[in-house]
Amino acid sequence: MSMKLYTAPRAPNPRRVTMFIAEKGIPDIELVPVDLNGGEHRGTAFRARNPVARVPVLELPDGRCLAESRAICTYLEGLHPAPNLMGESVEERAFIEMADRQVELHFFFLVANCIRHTHPGLAVLEQPQFADFGRAQGDRVLEAARVLDEQLARHAWLAGARFTIADITAYCALEFARGLMKFRPGDHGLARLQAYRDRIAERPCAA
Amino acid sequence: MSMKLYTAPRAPNPRRVTMFIAEKGIPDIELVPVDLNGGEHRGTAFRARNPVARVPVLELPDGRCLAESRAICTYLEGLHPAPNLMGESVEERAFIEMADRQVELHFFFLVANCIRHTHPGLAVLEQPQFADFGRAQGDRVLEAARVLDEQLARHAWLAGARFTIADITAYCALEFARGLMKFRPGDHGLARLQAYRDRIAERPCAA
Repeated sequence: MSMKLYTAPRAPNPRRVTMFIAEKGIPDIELVPVDLNGGEHRGTAFRARNPVARVPVLELPDGRCLAESRAICTYLEGLHPAPNLMGESVEERAFIEMADRQVELHFFFLVANCIRHTHPGLAVLEQPQFADFGRAQGDRVLEAARVLDEQLARHAWLAGARFTIADITAYCALEFARGLMKFRPGDHGLARLQAYRDRIAERPCAA
Repeated sequence: MSMKLYTAPRAPNPRRVTMFIAEKGIPDIELVPVDLNGGEHRGTAFRARNPVARVPVLELPDGRCLAESRAICTYLEGLHPAPNLMGESVEERAFIEMADRQVELHFFFLVANCIRHTHPGLAVLEQPQFADFGRAQGDRVLEAARVLDEQLARHAWLAGARFTIADITAYCALEFARGLMKFRPGDHGLARLQAYRDRIAERPCAA
């Protein structure tokens, strides 16, 4: 019996996991779509898999369910160590975790808060929306993007010399911002961040 | 030369790391206070250590700086494996990471958003405050606490049968809520969560 990934095709967090799976070339994970707009994630059946009602969730062959994008990636990295995306040594793991968390907490979450609280298409998921808060979070996206752009002046990828999970998180956030905030780093003079985004877009895992 | 932990005595995220250090009994980490109310974390010197201007930061003997509470703990767990707080096998690491992230994202962050956006004492750190958003996040704290209380019906600790980093995250969030939201699970009929909090409070690491 294979593993199942409960996912939603256009949501950014499941995309983090599907890109991670594609980059590693992991076969045989069945994708099971969850109807977020229909509220399926808030129903009893889904909450039995994840009490906090979020996708993605990885269901193991024995029926146990693992939620949280990054925890799922930790598990898959253990099963499929190559190519390494989360660090070989403990020290490398810690520094990659730092880069991944920083782009998640201080960029992705600003983007997500802006979109969830201002976009009409998200009103069904975020109730009530606080538009003033969302706009203020959106105003901080550019500053956060500038921090990323400066980091890319020092090394080619967010966590250093090679492509890691932190770049997957960054790309999913940049694509979410591109789609629903019309945010393009190049429009704001952030040429390094734009080139970085374009480089990742050409990888097969981003298809 | 020893490691330095840049910290702020009353802030909940640095406390996650100092509890982790205490639980493991790691000696010789120098604590360096950062004056958050004076804006020291936003200054050039601190931003050179952490571009996103947050405590805690662990400075290694070679001068490199590692930010993000959980990434610091990953590093320290590698240096001081016993007692294990983040999982032995990859599978255990993934499930503990899930529990840690869930209590962080779906409980701690609600508490922190409520306090940062409604408490007068946090106005200097969170500018502008969005009080309506903060109160709505606060309204969801009880529901999130109930999810934790139900999980504790199934196992003694958040990630299962033993004390882990997820319990440290939970305790720091519960104490933050107790201090600045006057939130006590027992006042809302959540006896298991209250007893769990009281059990952690008796551990030496919580002193």
